Amino acid sequence: MFKLVRTDKKTRARVGRFTTPHGKVNTPCFMPVGTQATVKTLSVEDIKNCGAGMILSNAYHLYLRPGVELIKKAGGLHKFMGWDKTILTDSGGFQIFSLTSLVKVRDEGVEFSSHIDGSKHFLSPEDVVRIQRDMLGSDISMVLDECVKYPSTRDRAESAMKITLDWAKRSKKEFGAKNPEGKLLFGIVQGSSFLDLREECAKRLVDMGFAGYAIGGVSVGEPDELIRETIEATAQMLPKNKVRYVMGVGTPIDIINAVAAGCDMFDCVMPTRNGRNGTAFTKEGKLPLRNARYKEDFRPPEGGCECYTCKNHTRAYLRHLINVNEILGLRLVSLHNIHFYVNLMAAIREAILVKDFERFKREFINHYGGEL
Amino acid sequence: MFKLVRTDKKTRARVGRFTTPHGKVNTPCFMPVGTQATVKTLSVEDIKNCGAGMILSNAYHLYLRPGVELIKKAGGLHKFMGWDKTILTDSGGFQIFSLTSLVKVRDEGVEFSSHIDGSKHFLSPEDVVRIQRDMLGSDISMVLDECVKYPSTRDRAESAMKITLDWAKRSKKEFGAKNPEGKLLFGIVQGSSFLDLREECAKRLVDMGFAGYAIGGVSVGEPDELIRETIEATAQMLPKNKVRYVMGVGTPIDIINAVAAGCDMFDCVMPTRNGRNGTAFTKEGKLPLRNARYKEDFRPPEGGCECYTCKNHTRAYLRHLINVNEILGLRLVSLHNIHFYVNLMAAIREAILVKDFERFKREFINHYGGEL
Repeated sequence: MFKLVRTDKKTRARVGRFTTPHGKVNTPCFMPVGTQATVKTLSVEDIKNCGAGMILSNAYHLYLRPGVELIKKAGGLHKFMGWDKTILTDSGGFQIFSLTSLVKVRDEGVEFSSHIDGSKHFLSPEDVVRIQRDMLGSDISMVLDECVKYPSTRDRAESAMKITLDWAKRSKKEFGAKNPEGKLLFGIVQGSSFLDLREECAKRLVDMGFAGYAIGGVSVGEPDELIRETIEATAQMLPKNKVRYVMGVGTPIDIINAVAAGCDMFDCVMPTRNGRNGTAFTKEGKLPLRNARYKEDFRPPEGGCECYTCKNHTRAYLRHLINVNEILGLRLVSLHNIHFYVNLMAAIREAILVKDFERFKREFINHYGGEL
Repeated sequence: MFKLVRTDKKTRARVGRFTTPHGKVNTPCFMPVGTQATVKTLSVEDIKNCGAGMILSNAYHLYLRPGVELIKKAGGLHKFMGWDKTILTDSGGFQIFSLTSLVKVRDEGVEFSSHIDGSKHFLSPEDVVRIQRDMLGSDISMVLDECVKYPSTRDRAESAMKITLDWAKRSKKEFGAKNPEGKLLFGIVQGSSFLDLREECAKRLVDMGFAGYAIGGVSVGEPDELIRETIEATAQMLPKNKVRYVMGVGTPIDIINAVAAGCDMFDCVMPTRNGRNGTAFTKEGKLPLRNARYKEDFRPPEGGCECYTCKNHTRAYLRHLINVNEILGLRLVSLHNIHFYVNLMAAIREAILVKDFERFKREFINHYGGEL
């Protein structure tokens, strides 16, 4: 299903596209995160106006609240939240292992206590496929995986990788060979920072055959350099004719480096989380709008930006809104940040297509400082 | 400046219009409240999409944060917040007497401590005119007034009314007889629930001659029936050829009754405050969307409503958003509520124009229950 349009000669960056039941996706692409059936502070109209063609949501969170039966009754997640483009849902593996307590991994699946009310739950990999594909109606489902934090012992990483493989096999079987509706299932490569474990995991997932492959368990506490090395090495373990999705990554620089390593899809809470902290992303770096230096700065957050916020408002106004705790401030900065990320991906695709990606990457990184 | 278009034969309801430097205003009308240079949770585009032609903001709050010098540097409040239609600013009298501590009323003006940081401030009525007209650039400025809570002794109400009159006279002088830009200054009738005090206040304000007259000091703790009686009686003390503005009122029923008594302009935090509590206004009454009964209710908040929220979302989705503390929920309900209030006023104007207001009023009140 993944069609390579162009591969960069000097790097491993590539432009591709694929189709889901809710439309075409051009890669490299960024998915705004809509954990609880909303990209925080933004309406679906806002997200579309930013140019986003797909979003990520989360099976674990929706399973707990409002419940997947309710969403099924609503006609699926697309109808429930009013989003008619592609939705990828994370399986909840990451959330179960990072948010919940009393987690017990058994062969059959995982038992955990809700991070909200402590209630006990059990989910098998088969349950998680059914929840995503059949109840939420996700265009792209992710297999249930076990994600370990960094640092992890080799034994711990190996056992998590092995159970992830076992669950992947069962997920694939549950998902079935044919999907008449064109829905997709992605496998997830685990293995922590042990590249031989990742190699084994990747190889066996590829043998099973998934529509796409995710690189999971990165950006879970390890140093920046190790994030980058793990992504670069793992990307090369994956087939060229399948889409590669780096989960939960990252800064604009992380993403550009991962694109150069041959990765295609990204999701991250950074644009919305920073938005709610009042920090705007710009090509020159992050703009902490609470800062007193923006008090009388009547320029838009980012000159030349075509987003609603930059076309209508100034840094001084946003700073005021944030300082007096007005929700509109969080929303306007989140909107700009999602626009920034989505349009960064469009610029990356364009640079690859015009054979100029290496220069684009170099110039972007040189330009992009830390906090302004 | 106020032109009466039609007066209802059976009630005192009337349709009128007037012009400010930022456009025409059709009355009866409702002003969404944008205390801190934003109508809470909504963008200026949202407010326009609701059909609002004017908003209210607040000199006291803006004077403290971000400061009126900053707003003047930004080119005035319209430019600062990106709103290009009419703005009325309250003088801050109500806020100074209700929010601040250590208030000292002197002949020259009022001394108070900021409700934010306790810092001491002094404002004269002349300062307050300059702040609104010259620094914020308000289309309609309100005179500084002293507002007493209910219940109040007659002496207390009388002394507040007298100082309000004195300040009104000085405000009028500061504002000047001519306003080449077409900006307007409104007087405020005080007097608590003592109708003879209100009569004296109204008469003397009318002698001074203002572009419009506000009924202040209602809905400050008194029973519903007294609110209604005070508004009805005070409206009759005011000239027919001037606009009458009831400050801080009220429920849809309060507004319809005040229109029937001959009032023209309203502002109230109810639509946005209820929105942030997850309660939607409908013609049948208030819809507390947190309520479990809406869990699987896949209808829009209000059938037939043309607002963005009702055209795109269900009660079940809004309930979910509110229950998981997602900001989008507060925003979508606020948006519907502002649309409801603004369109209620449009329906009222239409009913008066087609000589059907009395029936409209009766049917609206019969239909509108309490909480659904």
